[in-house]
Amino acid sequence: MVKKTKKPIYPFEDWTIRETEFSIETNYRNETIFAQANGYMGMRGNFEEGYSGPDGTSLKGTYINGFYEIHDIIYPEGGYGFAKTGQTMLNVADSKIIELYVGEEKFDLLKGKIHFYERVLDMKKGCVERKIKWESPSGKIVNVKIKRIVSLQRQHLAVISFSVEPINFTGNIKFVSAIDGDVRNITESEDVRVGSNLKGRVLETVERGANDFEGWISQKTQKSNLSYTCAMKNELIGTEKYEVLNNVKEDRVEVAVAFKAEKNRVYILNKFISYYTSKDCDKSETMKLALEEVRRAQEDGFCKIEKEQEEFLQSFWEDADVVIEGDKALQQGIRFNMFHLLQSVGRDGKTNIAAKGLTGEGYEGHYFWDSDIYILPFFLYTKPEIAKALIMYRYNLLDAARNRAKELGHKGALYPWRTIDGPECSAYFPAGTAQYHINADIVYALKRYVEATNDLDFLYDYGCEIVFETARFWEDLGAYIPLKGNKFCINTVTGPDEYTALVDNNAYTNYMAKMNLEYAYDIANKMKKEVPEKYQKVASKLNLKDEEIASWKRAADNMYLPYSEELDIIPQDDSFLYKERITVDEIPEDQFPLLLHWHYLNIYRYQICKQPDVLLLMFLQREKFTIEQLKKNFDYYEPITTHDSSLSPAIFSILANEIGYTDKAYKYFMMTARMDLDDYNDNVKDGIHAAAMAGSWSAVVNGFGGMRVYTDELHFTPRLPEGWKMLSFNVKYKGRKINVKLTHEESVFTLLEGEPIEIFYFDRRVLIKSGENILKGYEEK
Amino acid sequence: MVKKTKKPIYPFEDWTIRETEFSIETNYRNETIFAQANGYMGMRGNFEEGYSGPDGTSLKGTYINGFYEIHDIIYPEGGYGFAKTGQTMLNVADSKIIELYVGEEKFDLLKGKIHFYERVLDMKKGCVERKIKWESPSGKIVNVKIKRIVSLQRQHLAVISFSVEPINFTGNIKFVSAIDGDVRNITESEDVRVGSNLKGRVLETVERGANDFEGWISQKTQKSNLSYTCAMKNELIGTEKYEVLNNVKEDRVEVAVAFKAEKNRVYILNKFISYYTSKDCDKSETMKLALEEVRRAQEDGFCKIEKEQEEFLQSFWEDADVVIEGDKALQQGIRFNMFHLLQSVGRDGKTNIAAKGLTGEGYEGHYFWDSDIYILPFFLYTKPEIAKALIMYRYNLLDAARNRAKELGHKGALYPWRTIDGPECSAYFPAGTAQYHINADIVYALKRYVEATNDLDFLYDYGCEIVFETARFWEDLGAYIPLKGNKFCINTVTGPDEYTALVDNNAYTNYMAKMNLEYAYDIANKMKKEVPEKYQKVASKLNLKDEEIASWKRAADNMYLPYSEELDIIPQDDSFLYKERITVDEIPEDQFPLLLHWHYLNIYRYQICKQPDVLLLMFLQREKFTIEQLKKNFDYYEPITTHDSSLSPAIFSILANEIGYTDKAYKYFMMTARMDLDDYNDNVKDGIHAAAMAGSWSAVVNGFGGMRVYTDELHFTPRLPEGWKMLSFNVKYKGRKINVKLTHEESVFTLLEGEPIEIFYFDRRVLIKSGENILKGYEEK
Repeated sequence: MVKKTKKPIYPFEDWTIRETEFSIETNYRNETIFAQANGYMGMRGNFEEGYSGPDGTSLKGTYINGFYEIHDIIYPEGGYGFAKTGQTMLNVADSKIIELYVGEEKFDLLKGKIHFYERVLDMKKGCVERKIKWESPSGKIVNVKIKRIVSLQRQHLAVISFSVEPINFTGNIKFVSAIDGDVRNITESEDVRVGSNLKGRVLETVERGANDFEGWISQKTQKSNLSYTCAMKNELIGTEKYEVLNNVKEDRVEVAVAFKAEKNRVYILNKFISYYTSKDCDKSETMKLALEEVRRAQEDGFCKIEKEQEEFLQSFWEDADVVIEGDKALQQGIRFNMFHLLQSVGRDGKTNIAAKGLTGEGYEGHYFWDSDIYILPFFLYTKPEIAKALIMYRYNLLDAARNRAKELGHKGALYPWRTIDGPECSAYFPAGTAQYHINADIVYALKRYVEATNDLDFLYDYGCEIVFETARFWEDLGAYIPLKGNKFCINTVTGPDEYTALVDNNAYTNYMAKMNLEYAYDIANKMKKEVPEKYQKVASKLNLKDEEIASWKRAADNMYLPYSEELDIIPQDDSFLYKERITVDEIPEDQFPLLLHWHYLNIYRYQICKQPDVLLLMFLQREKFTIEQLKKNFDYYEPITTHDSSLSPAIFSILANEIGYTDKAYKYFMMTARMDLDDYNDNVKDGIHAAAMAGSWSAVVNGFGGMRVYTDELHFTPRLPEGWKMLSFNVKYKGRKINVKLTHEESVFTLLEGEPIEIFYFDRRVLIKSGENILKGYEEK
Repeated sequence: MVKKTKKPIYPFEDWTIRETEFSIETNYRNETIFAQANGYMGMRGNFEEGYSGPDGTSLKGTYINGFYEIHDIIYPEGGYGFAKTGQTMLNVADSKIIELYVGEEKFDLLKGKIHFYERVLDMKKGCVERKIKWESPSGKIVNVKIKRIVSLQRQHLAVISFSVEPINFTGNIKFVSAIDGDVRNITESEDVRVGSNLKGRVLETVERGANDFEGWISQKTQKSNLSYTCAMKNELIGTEKYEVLNNVKEDRVEVAVAFKAEKNRVYILNKFISYYTSKDCDKSETMKLALEEVRRAQEDGFCKIEKEQEEFLQSFWEDADVVIEGDKALQQGIRFNMFHLLQSVGRDGKTNIAAKGLTGEGYEGHYFWDSDIYILPFFLYTKPEIAKALIMYRYNLLDAARNRAKELGHKGALYPWRTIDGPECSAYFPAGTAQYHINADIVYALKRYVEATNDLDFLYDYGCEIVFETARFWEDLGAYIPLKGNKFCINTVTGPDEYTALVDNNAYTNYMAKMNLEYAYDIANKMKKEVPEKYQKVASKLNLKDEEIASWKRAADNMYLPYSEELDIIPQDDSFLYKERITVDEIPEDQFPLLLHWHYLNIYRYQICKQPDVLLLMFLQREKFTIEQLKKNFDYYEPITTHDSSLSPAIFSILANEIGYTDKAYKYFMMTARMDLDDYNDNVKDGIHAAAMAGSWSAVVNGFGGMRVYTDELHFTPRLPEGWKMLSFNVKYKGRKINVKLTHEESVFTLLEGEPIEIFYFDRRVLIKSGENILKGYEEK
């Protein structure tokens, strides 16, 4: 049930997000919207010149993906095996600072008078530009233009170009460009999803310095044994008469550049910023590398970096762009989402994509199953090399997952529900460790990756270990239960829907575990036959015996798959249908999200869902269910789903589409496509919802585009909304790149790369040949 | 399955516990065993002269029942409605201190030489006496005798009589009698069941002073707004030539008495100690009252207090004593247990009985359902006025319980799982708030009380409110579930067995809730008829309508009562039988208690029990089940019960007895009767197990004595163990006091007080007339 709609905040523009007015009320939120990142580091849209608004209207934030502090997790009433150590992505030194002094007056949007204000995120250029015409309290007018780029090409680099033009005076101007190391994370919040358990300031400055136009700060964490350097190099353009003054304080390094500015002339301070951490190189090297980076960048010049950025994005959009003709709001929303996904994703195999990207501190910068189930498909079918990096990240976590399984008395590996680099960081196990399905989610992502890329080397060299160790875990976790006809049951788990916890035989978990076990069995046999040496190597490493592999098959074959005869639906778990059913309609609006207003005991007591669970399963394993089954389950679960999770609406949109609930499909898509742009949940200030953004791509491609991937082939059953004129997107699959262009008249599949390939179009097998393949509309069905 | 047996620690003596050797290794434990209390305050068996052993071998403890500090409960990942404020019973000023100086040498058992050592708890006298012959490092020998009494008659008073006799010298002796306010609670422990969340020292000294032989300290808490005064008065006996010196420090007040002692003469320092708190009187009065108390006591003299104590206990034992002829170990164990119960129980209607009595800091001095279900019967049938006080305590908590229900969105009242004076203090809700059965447990206790005493005034004036508000809660909590045939189901609860959590239709809970609802319905109707004015009053106070009362009956009549046809047993809950069954035999010994070695997820995953759940239900509502049902369920649940809860063995003993598993009955009884004396769980150092102690009384009276109370009548089916010659105990019931004396030849019921009464003896109705009623043995069945 679609509860909410929101008024759009920004004007509908194809490639840009435009803020036309500055306001304290929306500043915090817009810091997220205009946040920039490159997968390695992220900067919130804080003003370079500073912000003097009241507390709670801004969060100065700069983040490095996977750079964290640890802290003890203290439970008032703990238990064996509870997660002991938390990890929190750190807010690192703020290098965005460029203060501007007009005479003695400091440029500040909250003082003086704003004659013109505009901030534009250009998603083709990968640049945020602010243009302001500002009058100082004493009446001096300046035009200010600030461009910021966080380089997608050079992941350690960000650049700011700050220009000022005196309009009605000639006089002294001063820039103060700084790195400020006196930073800390949010530590207190009413909302359990926000705020960390770090106490006070964490980062200690161990080196700082400045030299002419350069400055640097090195800091280290207290407990996680990590360190980093932030360096800057500044250049002044517009005059050669200036004075440079360096000011080095305990935690702050400033380069001040003062000069006399003439009326109607433009002066620019370019600032090149770099971060290197001890995860990138030896501890002792971070300063050297960061300084080299900014010097190289300055030599190359701002323009080159600007151009690189545009080129990078051109290539990205060539692969990834989704064109919607006929709905400007959605066109803008979907691009915004894809842009932020690119900004957020770690591409180095050592980092992943945090729940809030690199735009805020919600969920402490942790990685969840969101990456594997919701986000990975977007990259897999547009930028498969990024998908590979995400899975490689999971491979690199395998030892930690083995340790966790062992700690809990299990065989194999158990991935953490939430983590940065390995240990379980979830401090509420019923909605954390109990979500064992994470194991199968990762395998599902891997399986999809291998199917879509035929990257068997990756599977045999790395992936198979994940699959075997997780299969091993499932076989150990479950049990053959006599009163269930000796079926293989997996008890005491929490499924994706966190509004029901600690249940037996969660359908999602059991189906996914079955897939995991079967895949392990199949791969083992395939490897034995096709790459016996590699198989021997991994089998010996994991001490894998044939009997164990057979036991996986046995567990899979006997997996208990819940089904309710009375209702002819799949029950979410053994107990779900025996709870009191309450529909979302019956709950007052002010009670949402329920987790902030109801005790878990009451939430768990009802048939009420935070997000799809059975329905997500049906989407992921679509080939296992008939459309009638899909409809029945949708009709059952939809009225009791609150969508209190941002992951929810996309799946509902996709399935509604397939069932033929076109209105609902569209409404749910609206919710997800513009969830952050329109701030549906009033919490985008805490960061974007990366998984929901990726969900919106799925809602387009899998929903309106009707794409499904199963038994190793692409299927398309497009359903273009009435109001849309055209929908176009690309899909990379098995070395091909196909453009799909849908109108109400026809569907055009253009093979842009690779050999001809057979696909299914409305259940009809079609060979997609080189060039355009025009398939007539739905009547062909 | 009975896993453990332990070697007895103390010699078997009928009325005494005797320690014959001092040892550092057993000191901590013996401080609990020799702890003294009177329901108002408790003192661990710390040595008056001090203790210089290493850390971890002693806990200086003095506690006042219900005197607590509060602290915020901080969750690493919290949730709506989680308990916010913890309460911790405070370790208050130590007034036990009487240091003895022989010349310059301080009397210290860890220095010099011990020629003789003995400590005896005399349970008839209510006194602990230590006798020591000690040789100082320099060779001075003294006889020391120390008696301590915590007065059962005068609840604010404790007295110590410390005598010293020089054996081989004449010389200077000095006593330093002190009150030390520099005290704190244990804050760190590996064991979640021990230790509080208080940080550092809590009590602040606000007044202190000394005057001649008197001294006092007043302290206040930081947050709970409570304060108290501890006062002392000392007197020296044996010489009139002495010097008194007062030493008043920030947190410590000393009265030093120095004199010249002659060889072979006895000198005694008597110390009278009193505590008054701001819960007893106005804040400003505590000092006055405490000083008055010690002055009065000194005037009366140590001997009078000693005598009073013996008289009080004589009366107690006349009512409560259990005589076992033929097993000295058990005779001693059961008396020790009853003695500690008396010591622990709050008798003022404002306090209750903490899980560890007043002997230690385990479970933070909280009251649990232990009081209502396990402990109350002992008092109800021996000292019913104390049972009444315990229920009055629950009545006084009703407003807090109403608030808690409201906070969680429910009607009526929800009692806290653990608390000192009202708020829910459980910080792990799956084994805390989820144990809704506490509501019915309290009503069960009340119902038993009313049955056993006919105290209808109490029921109509107070008790009925508890019954109505809890019935109201149940009706609101449960729901009529279509797929369960529209039966009234109570979902998402935790039953008594904490090794299974958040389940649906826990049998114990449903049966007990049904009782609660029926009782509410019955009382309401009875009151309407018999005391219409009182009914009107309470109905108007609670806004009680006839429809609501009818809804209670409807819920009770339609209550879902689980039963498994396949196994012909009562399943613990809807999911229990579908979990993997694991017997205690299969688990390595070093894994117990499981809660310290397994993650809850794994514990919950198995059919494995911490304690009886279905079996406890069958005991409490014995009349609802046949003996065949009892046996079947016992056979099913016994092998999977770990007895990781000290509440467990007593119930198993009682039921084993009835089924005819005489060996098991005896072994389980051994476990419970001497659980603390023999330190079965290696944790008596943290305090006694009050509920297990009471359980042992039940195991005698309900088990071997075969007493059951149902449909308002007494039933006896005695089964005397082979090795016992005679078992005798008293029962108070409906104004009668009956002595029951069982031998293998006959059963003698002697009516000691009250009118003749009919009872059931082996299902035969018998009139118990004044004097002895000799019933022949079991063949009469």
